[in-house]
Amino acid sequence: MPSTPSRTLEAVPNAHPDRDYEVAMTIPEFTCVCPITGQPDFATIRIRYVPDQQLVELKSLKLYMWSYRDAGAFHEDVTNRILNDLVEACAPRRMTVVGEFLPRGGITTVVRASYAAP
Amino acid sequence: MPSTPSRTLEAVPNAHPDRDYEVAMTIPEFTCVCPITGQPDFATIRIRYVPDQQLVELKSLKLYMWSYRDAGAFHEDVTNRILNDLVEACAPRRMTVVGEFLPRGGITTVVRASYAAP
Amino acid sequence: MPSTPSRTLEAVPNAHPDRDYEVAMTIPEFTCVCPITGQPDFATIRIRYVPDQQLVELKSLKLYMWSYRDAGAFHEDVTNRILNDLVEACAPRRMTVVGEFLPRGGITTVVRASYAAP
Amino acid sequence: MPSTPSRTLEAVPNAHPDRDYEVAMTIPEFTCVCPITGQPDFATIRIRYVPDQQLVELKSLKLYMWSYRDAGAFHEDVTNRILNDLVEACAPRRMTVVGEFLPRGGITTVVRASYAAP
Amino acid sequence: MPSTPSRTLEAVPNAHPDRDYEVAMTIPEFTCVCPITGQPDFATIRIRYVPDQQLVELKSLKLYMWSYRDAGAFHEDVTNRILNDLVEACAPRRMTVVGEFLPRGGITTVVRASYAAP
Amino acid sequence: MPSTPSRTLEAVPNAHPDRDYEVAMTIPEFTCVCPITGQPDFATIRIRYVPDQQLVELKSLKLYMWSYRDAGAFHEDVTNRILNDLVEACAPRRMTVVGEFLPRGGITTVVRASYAAP
Amino acid sequence: MPSTPSRTLEAVPNAHPDRDYEVAMTIPEFTCVCPITGQPDFATIRIRYVPDQQLVELKSLKLYMWSYRDAGAFHEDVTNRILNDLVEACAPRRMTVVGEFLPRGGITTVVRASYAAP
Amino acid sequence: MPSTPSRTLEAVPNAHPDRDYEVAMTIPEFTCVCPITGQPDFATIRIRYVPDQQLVELKSLKLYMWSYRDAGAFHEDVTNRILNDLVEACAPRRMTVVGEFLPRGGITTVVRASYAAP
Amino acid sequence: MPSTPSRTLEAVPNAHPDRDYEVAMTIPEFTCVCPITGQPDFATIRIRYVPDQQLVELKSLKLYMWSYRDAGAFHEDVTNRILNDLVEACAPRRMTVVGEFLPRGGITTVVRASYAAP
Amino acid sequence: MPSTPSRTLEAVPNAHPDRDYEVAMTIPEFTCVCPITGQPDFATIRIRYVPDQQLVELKSLKLYMWSYRDAGAFHEDVTNRILNDLVEACAPRRMTVVGEFLPRGGITTVVRASYAAP
Repeated sequence: MPSTPSRTLEAVPNAHPDRDYEVAMTIPEFTCVCPITGQPDFATIRIRYVPDQQLVELKSLKLYMWSYRDAGAFHEDVTNRILNDLVEACAPRRMTVVGEFLPRGGITTVVRASYAAP
Repeated sequence: MPSTPSRTLEAVPNAHPDRDYEVAMTIPEFTCVCPITGQPDFATIRIRYVPDQQLVELKSLKLYMWSYRDAGAFHEDVTNRILNDLVEACAPRRMTVVGEFLPRGGITTVVRASYAAP
Repeated sequence: MPSTPSRTLEAVPNAHPDRDYEVAMTIPEFTCVCPITGQPDFATIRIRYVPDQQLVELKSLKLYMWSYRDAGAFHEDVTNRILNDLVEACAPRRMTVVGEFLPRGGITTVVRASYAAP
Repeated sequence: MPSTPSRTLEAVPNAHPDRDYEVAMTIPEFTCVCPITGQPDFATIRIRYVPDQQLVELKSLKLYMWSYRDAGAFHEDVTNRILNDLVEACAPRRMTVVGEFLPRGGITTVVRASYAAP
Repeated sequence: MPSTPSRTLEAVPNAHPDRDYEVAMTIPEFTCVCPITGQPDFATIRIRYVPDQQLVELKSLKLYMWSYRDAGAFHEDVTNRILNDLVEACAPRRMTVVGEFLPRGGITTVVRASYAAP
Repeated sequence: MPSTPSRTLEAVPNAHPDRDYEVAMTIPEFTCVCPITGQPDFATIRIRYVPDQQLVELKSLKLYMWSYRDAGAFHEDVTNRILNDLVEACAPRRMTVVGEFLPRGGITTVVRASYAAP
Repeated sequence: MPSTPSRTLEAVPNAHPDRDYEVAMTIPEFTCVCPITGQPDFATIRIRYVPDQQLVELKSLKLYMWSYRDAGAFHEDVTNRILNDLVEACAPRRMTVVGEFLPRGGITTVVRASYAAP
Repeated sequence: MPSTPSRTLEAVPNAHPDRDYEVAMTIPEFTCVCPITGQPDFATIRIRYVPDQQLVELKSLKLYMWSYRDAGAFHEDVTNRILNDLVEACAPRRMTVVGEFLPRGGITTVVRASYAAP
Repeated sequence: MPSTPSRTLEAVPNAHPDRDYEVAMTIPEFTCVCPITGQPDFATIRIRYVPDQQLVELKSLKLYMWSYRDAGAFHEDVTNRILNDLVEACAPRRMTVVGEFLPRGGITTVVRASYAAP
Repeated sequence: MPSTPSRTLEAVPNAHPDRDYEVAMTIPEFTCVCPITGQPDFATIRIRYVPDQQLVELKSLKLYMWSYRDAGAFHEDVTNRILNDLVEACAPRRMTVVGEFLPRGGITTVVRASYAAP
C-alpha cells in the first residue's frame, strides 16, 4: 500500500472572496517512488483553482510536495491524492491538478483531475 | 488482409472511480508496415481517456504497441483498431486515440478516433 | 479563366463507417500560377475531414495536388475548388480545406473553407 | 485631429458566395505616426473575414496600408478605422481586425475589433 | 498591512464606444516587495478589456505600475487590486488582469482576475 | 540529360567594393522536377556571398529561380549549378549556396556548396 | 540618387575604456523607401560594437534611425551607410551592422557589414 | 552477436568532384532491436559528408536503413557500423554519422562518429 | 553620479581548484534606475566564470543584485561594475558578465564584459 | 560533510576503440539534497565523452544517478564528483559533465567540468 506523506498543507485567508478569480501554480520539482519497482519518478505538478475563503499557503505547499520524495505512488493515484489534500486544506470553489510524468518504457503519462464545490 | 497483433492489453483497478478524471499517454515509438508496399511506417500514438473501473496497465500497453512492428496496417484502420482494443481492455467512460504518421509522398496524415460509453 | 487540373481524385472504402472519426492531411508541396501575372504561388494545403463510406486515396491526392502546378488559380478560388473536388470524390460527413499561401507584396493570406453533409 | 489616408480600397467579386468561408491576411509592415509626439509606431495588422459578394483586392490593400505611413493615429482608433474602411469596401458577412503594436514605455498593446453584418 | 501606491490612473475618451472591441496590454516590467520577507518579486502583468466610454491612458498606466516598486503586495492580492484600480479609472464593459510571477521556492504562480460591468 | 534554365542572372554595381561585407538571401519558393521520376521537388535555397564589384540583381534572381520550375535536376547537381551560375553572373569574392530539399522516402537532404575567388 | 538622412548621431564618454567589452543593440523599427519603386521597405537593424573612448548615445540613435523613414535606400547600401555613420560618430574599436529586411518577391535579404579600427 | 543487415548500399557518380561540397541527410525513421532485451530502439540518423567521386544513392540508403529493423544493435556500435558501411559504399572525403536515440531508463543517448579520407 | 550599492559579495572555498571548470548563473530579476530620467530599467544578468580558489556565494549574490534596486546606473556602466565587484570578491581565473536590458525607445541593448586573470 | 553515493558505475568494452567518436547522454531526472538547508535540488545532467577502451554501462549509470537522491551536494561540487567517478569507471579520452540546476533564490546555476586524458 502506498505510504502517505506526513506534511500538512496550510491555508491563509483570501482577501477577495467576493470575486471568482483563478490562481495557477506550477511545481517542476516533484519526485516520488514507484511502489512496485522502487524506481524514482519525476513529474511537473500544475494546480489551478478558484479560491473561496482561503488560499493555499505557498511554503506549506512546497513542504507538502517534498514529502512525496520517499512515498510510493502510482501516477493516476498520486495526482488524485494531491487534489484531495488540497481541496481539504483550502476548500476551493473549483480546482484542477495535473501531473505530467517523465517517460517510462517510452510512454509519457499526464493525469488531470478536477474538483468543483457542490 | 492486415495481420492482427497477438499481444493482450491488461487492466488494473482504478482507485478513484468516483471521479471523472483524465489520463493522457504519448507513445512516440510506434511502427507498423504498409500492407500494400511492405514499407515501414512510423507514428506517434496519443491516448486520452476517462477511466471507469479500470486503468490501462502500462507495461502491457508497451508490449501491445510493439506487437504492431510486423503487422500490416493502413493509417486510418490501425488508429481505429487501437481504440477498439483499448476500449475492450479497460472499458473507459470516454477515450480518444490519435495517430500522427510521418509523411509519405510529401503528405503527413493524422487520424483521430473517439469513443464514449453509452 | 483559370485552367482546370485534369487529374482525378480516387477513393477507397472506409473500414470504420460506424464511427465519426477525423483524418487530417498536410501537403506542404503545393504550387500554382497567378492567373494575372503568371507568377508562381506556393502554399501549404491542410485537409481535415470525417469520412462516411470512403477515404481519400493518398496517391491520387498527391497527383491531384501536382496537377495544379501549371494551373492559374486565385488564393480564395483554388482553396474552394480543392474542397469541391474532394467532397465530390469521397462524400465526407464534414470537411475543411485550408490554404496557407506564402506572402505576396508583404501580405500573407490563409483561406479556410468547410463543407458539411446535409 | 488624426489625418486620413487617401488611398481607396478596392474589391473583386467572390466566386464562391454560396459558402461561408474565411480569408485571413497578415500584414507585418504597418507603420503610422503618434498624433501627439510625432513618433513613428509599428504594428502587425491581422485581418480575418467571411466574404459575402466581394473579396478585398490585394494590391489596393497593400497601398491602403502604406497610406498610413504619414498619418497620425492612436492604437485603438486606427484599428477601428481600418475595420470600418474594409467593411465599407467589401461588405463582408463577418470581419475581425487585430493591430499588434510594438512596445512603447515598456507596454505592448494589441487591439482587436470585430464586425458582423446585420 | 500592504502599502498603497499613490499614483493615479488616468483615462481618455474612447472614440468608438458604439462597438465592443478589445484592448490587450502586456507589461513585463512589474516589481513589488513581499510584505513578509521584504524580498522583491517580479511579474509580467497582462490587461485585457472591452472599453466603454473611456480608454486607459498609457503613460499614467506606466507610472501606476512603477508605483508598486516599493509597495508590499501578495501575489493574489496585488492582481486583484490592479483590477480594482483599473475598473475604477476607466469603467470598462469587461476586464481581465493576469499576474505572472517569477518562481519562489521552485513554484511559479499566475493569478487571473476578471470584472464584468453589471 | 537535365534540361537547362534559360533565364539570365543580372548584376548591379556594388557601391561599397572597398569593404568585405556579406549579403545573405533566402528563397523558400524553389521547385524543380526529378529527372528520373518526373515528380516535383521543393526546396528552400539560401545564398550567402561577399560581393566584389557587383551585386546580384534581385528581380533577375527571382526569375532565374522560377526558370527551374520545369527543369529536371538532382539535389546535389542543381545546388552546384546555381552556385556556378551566380559566380559567373556577379564574380563574388566568396559565395555559399545551400539547398534544403523537402523529404523523399522519409529522408531529408541538404546540399551546401561554396566558392572562393582565387 | 538616394537621399541622405539629416539627423546627427551623438556620442557619450565610455566609462570603461581600459577594457574591451561589447555592446549590442537591436532596432526592430526600421523603415526606408526603395529608390526605384518608391515602395516602403522594413528591416530589423542589429548593431554590435566594442567601444573605444565613446558610446553611441541612445536617443540620437533612435532619431537617426527614424530619419531613414523617407530616405531612398537599397538594402546593401543602407546597411553600409549606417555602419559608416556610426563609426564616424563614436570611433569604435570594432563594429558590425546587420540589416534583416522583410521579403520582397519571395526573397529575404540580410546584409552584414563590419569595421575594425586600424 | 549482433546480426548484420543484408541490404547493399549503392552509389552514383558525383557530377562535381572538382569541388569540396557537403551533403547532409536526416533519417527520422530508424529502428533496431536491443541485442540483450529484444526491446525495439528508435533513433534519428543524421549523415553529413563531402563526396569524392561518388554520391550515396538515396533509395538504397532507405532500404539499407530499413534492414536494421530486425537487427540487434547497441547505440554506440550501430552508429559506427553505419559510418563504416557508408564509407565503404561511396568513399567520401569526409563523413559524420550521428545517431540520436529515444530515451531508455530516463537517459537519452546521442552518438557521433566521423571519418576523414587519408 | 550613480549611487553605489552597499551590499557585500561573499565567497566560499572552491573544492576543485585543481581543475578549470565553468560556473554559469542567470539572474532574470535585476532592476535599477536610469540616472537621468529616474525611470526603472529591467535586465537579465548572466555570469559565467572559471573559479580559482573561491566560488561566489549564492545568497550574497542575490542580495548584491537586489541592492541595485534604487541605484542609478547606465546599461554599459552597471554591467562593467558588476564584473569588477565579482572579480574583486572571488578572484576568478576568467569571468564574463552579460546584461540583457528590456527595450527603451524601441531599442534593446545587451552589454557583454569579460575579465581574465593575468 | 557531504555523504557519498554507494552505487558503483560499470563499464563495457568499446567495439570501436580505433576511432575517436563521441557519446552524449542527457539525464533529466537528477535530484540531490542541499547539505546546509536539507532542501531538495533538481538538475539535468549532461555527459559527453570520447571513449577509449570502455563505454559507460547504461543501467549502472541510471542507478548511480539515483544514488544521489539522499546525498548532500553543492552544485559545483557534485558536478565535479560525477566527472571524477565517470573518469575512474571508464577511463575516457575526453569527457565533459554539465549540471543544469533549477533556480534557487531566483538564480539558475549551470556547472560545466571537463577531463582530458594525459
